[in-house]
Amino acid sequence: MESVREYLWFETDKRVEMINITRRIQELVNDSGIEEGICLINSMHITASVFINDAESGLHKDFKEWLEELAPHEPTSQYLHNRGVEDNADAHLKRQIMGREVVVAITEGELDFGPWEQIFYGEFDGQRRKRVLVKIIGE
Amino acid sequence: MESVREYLWFETDKRVEMINITRRIQELVNDSGIEEGICLINSMHITASVFINDAESGLHKDFKEWLEELAPHEPTSQYLHNRGVEDNADAHLKRQIMGREVVVAITEGELDFGPWEQIFYGEFDGQRRKRVLVKIIGE
Amino acid sequence: MESVREYLWFETDKRVEMINITRRIQELVNDSGIEEGICLINSMHITASVFINDAESGLHKDFKEWLEELAPHEPTSQYLHNRGVEDNADAHLKRQIMGREVVVAITEGELDFGPWEQIFYGEFDGQRRKRVLVKIIGE
Repeated sequence: MESVREYLWFETDKRVEMINITRRIQELVNDSGIEEGICLINSMHITASVFINDAESGLHKDFKEWLEELAPHEPTSQYLHNRGVEDNADAHLKRQIMGREVVVAITEGELDFGPWEQIFYGEFDGQRRKRVLVKIIGE
Repeated sequence: MESVREYLWFETDKRVEMINITRRIQELVNDSGIEEGICLINSMHITASVFINDAESGLHKDFKEWLEELAPHEPTSQYLHNRGVEDNADAHLKRQIMGREVVVAITEGELDFGPWEQIFYGEFDGQRRKRVLVKIIGE
Repeated sequence: MESVREYLWFETDKRVEMINITRRIQELVNDSGIEEGICLINSMHITASVFINDAESGLHKDFKEWLEELAPHEPTSQYLHNRGVEDNADAHLKRQIMGREVVVAITEGELDFGPWEQIFYGEFDGQRRKRVLVKIIGE
């Protein structure tokens, strides 16, 4: 069994952003030389997500609006987590809806994807440096 | 390390359906000959889920009603994603709540499950052919 | 490829609790001798979760209140699942928001974590004995 661990770094301009990382993940799979196995991709921060969905900008705006309804940022005082210096409680909640991680099959050296599957980094408390972990295991 | 990749195909009668696939997954594990490892089961489509929960029809109706409250299908015009030919934005949202994938331990050739764990395909935009990927790795 | 399967047992005092299990998981990784691979940690019960987020008690109270808004326990009669002897339909829904499982990379014998990542058992229908499965595969 072979294994590879890589990091991707992000520092978004906005507090909430969704960034397509599919090509970068496929490049890491290519570089690993692993033909059959799985690839784990997870946010290393607890106010961000990695998720698989559609690369459609209208849908991403729908996601942001919907998450804001389910877990509003304002008023920040509604959350106990924000009673000190923090104002990001909503980001911890949003990340649970969108998920921490995805696990993707690797078959014949490729991400084994359906026609519309794309991998996104979902940032809910951005404007600072954060990491995504990529772990590839297989042969 | 051994690995097997299989697909399951679905074409549901209704737009929203939940289908128990536990037995089919266990059969694929049996056929693989893998005794110790993990099994990844994921929807290959971004408006469907694979999830583990209870095989109880009342609960499945509760799930459908609850998802309809959290991410309503109607009015379809409330979503930017539906501004063109699509009307399935809600299905993309519902799938984030229910999840894309599950990873299940295989121990002594069996899905290593608690007493009530059952695997379901969750369809939120059905009536067309869709696939679930099954990737088994181990020895 | 090596593999290890272990169980953690829980019996909470309250119906809803969140318990930090990070140290116990790291100890199982240490005991396994596996240096490179992945660790699957999942609830074996369908009214409980395993999730990764912040070890901050205010946030945990925020989580509980937020889940209670999204999937209220009362009135229990609002759920079909509760039409018989059960009263835990809300726990099945809450567990979908918080997730069944996490998959964590193991690198150089350690859980490959960001600075604030901690693993929690999330109980939504407690006061009885339940299990978490830990499956470690790698080399």
